Amino acid sequence: MTLAAPSDLDIANMLADVARAAILPYFRHPDLVTDNKEADGFDPVTEADRAAEAAMRDLLSRHRPADAILGEEFGARPGSSGRTWVLDPIDGTRGFLSGTPTWGVLIALSEANGPVLGIIDQPYTQERFIGAPGVAVLDGPRGRVALSTRSTETLDRAILFTTFPEVGTPEDRAGFQAVSEQVRLTRYGMDCYAYALLAAGQIDLVIEAGLNAYDIQAPIAVIEAAGGVVTDWQGGPVHDGGRALAAANPTLHAAALEILRRV
Amino acid sequence: MTLAAPSDLDIANMLADVARAAILPYFRHPDLVTDNKEADGFDPVTEADRAAEAAMRDLLSRHRPADAILGEEFGARPGSSGRTWVLDPIDGTRGFLSGTPTWGVLIALSEANGPVLGIIDQPYTQERFIGAPGVAVLDGPRGRVALSTRSTETLDRAILFTTFPEVGTPEDRAGFQAVSEQVRLTRYGMDCYAYALLAAGQIDLVIEAGLNAYDIQAPIAVIEAAGGVVTDWQGGPVHDGGRALAAANPTLHAAALEILRRV
Repeated sequence: MTLAAPSDLDIANMLADVARAAILPYFRHPDLVTDNKEADGFDPVTEADRAAEAAMRDLLSRHRPADAILGEEFGARPGSSGRTWVLDPIDGTRGFLSGTPTWGVLIALSEANGPVLGIIDQPYTQERFIGAPGVAVLDGPRGRVALSTRSTETLDRAILFTTFPEVGTPEDRAGFQAVSEQVRLTRYGMDCYAYALLAAGQIDLVIEAGLNAYDIQAPIAVIEAAGGVVTDWQGGPVHDGGRALAAANPTLHAAALEILRRV
Repeated sequence: MTLAAPSDLDIANMLADVARAAILPYFRHPDLVTDNKEADGFDPVTEADRAAEAAMRDLLSRHRPADAILGEEFGARPGSSGRTWVLDPIDGTRGFLSGTPTWGVLIALSEANGPVLGIIDQPYTQERFIGAPGVAVLDGPRGRVALSTRSTETLDRAILFTTFPEVGTPEDRAGFQAVSEQVRLTRYGMDCYAYALLAAGQIDLVIEAGLNAYDIQAPIAVIEAAGGVVTDWQGGPVHDGGRALAAANPTLHAAALEILRRV
């Protein structure tokens, strides 16, 4: 008997499974060990972060040896296939350290023009938001739910999220603020869970700055599969990182982009 | 056979159960109906809010007819026992409308000097944070965990939460900001879940303003049972609402209070 080889989506789910298993024992653990990665700032790296990425890289070495890897903790491994697995084991380390269920495991498979498959996994709530060709679903403790973005077309009806009120540089902050002044509601503090909520049709806009490729590739794949649009603040591709504008639909995206371009 | 009458803690759990059942069908529902309670601001009341409080009041009418009720949606019902059940069916309606699992059902039993029992329930994550005489527990999908606040004694090691960056009035904001400048990390957007995280030993401080009695009584009971301290910004009782300072322990509380008193 020959077993069918795992598909890319199977692999992505296996990656999310091993990351969950590696991370959950550390979450809300009273003796959580943290480092300080940046001398000037507060960017803790946890044992969980490293354990999860190591487990994911090990799995990829066995199942996808020809694919490249770009990981937040252990950097780049070259490949020969033209495909790259982009991994952020714990996106939202400050949320993780605060015990909030807003951080996530980000997994994307990227080709030349950006991500083609993505997972945002929240291990504590056991919610897995998946975007892939023909697939846009939330697998959670209450079963499987289709992901579909909202039809909100005007800013005055939109709910906007970002993680920190300062957003990034003062210029980044000014751009965010200009959009925020036009929307119905602005909220903070959700880390990558905000992108998942956008894909799930709960909110309308996420605007962030200073992102790395591994912060945004999985959200791009999940949101686009659910009907949304993700670009930089000029309307160009953002899969290499920078400033991101994620919107529930093209009309709302255009309205927010017009403001961000002016700033 | 005579069945034992339900204890106050039994009643509180029953209230949380009926609220969960009433609210969950509305959470993340695509056709969620919202009103605008305040003409000037954004304070939506959902069908879920009303259904949950009605269910809780009905239960209290049957099991505790002599106790008074103070509810966020339907106001005060007088009683003859000197005890009051204080209910906020959905604390954090903005979070609820955004799909974040940060809102909660707040239930407190209050006597002359404030709350003696409290529950913060998060129906979606199925986490119930309970504080009562001799009881400080989280009942959740991963079983029962003891609640115990942190021993962080200095502000420079503390994690601080509030819901909105503006906090309240400009003066409220200035007080918050003065403490925020001294702490290790400030985060936003958690609604009443921040108080639950403080009781669970995940964060160290919550500072808020403009609270009503039903916003703070359950957090007081849960946090005090777990070892924390909750007062107003002058160190006095806050169970009637206003400005709240919740801290993981008396030493940290004194350090934050010293700053808030000066502002």
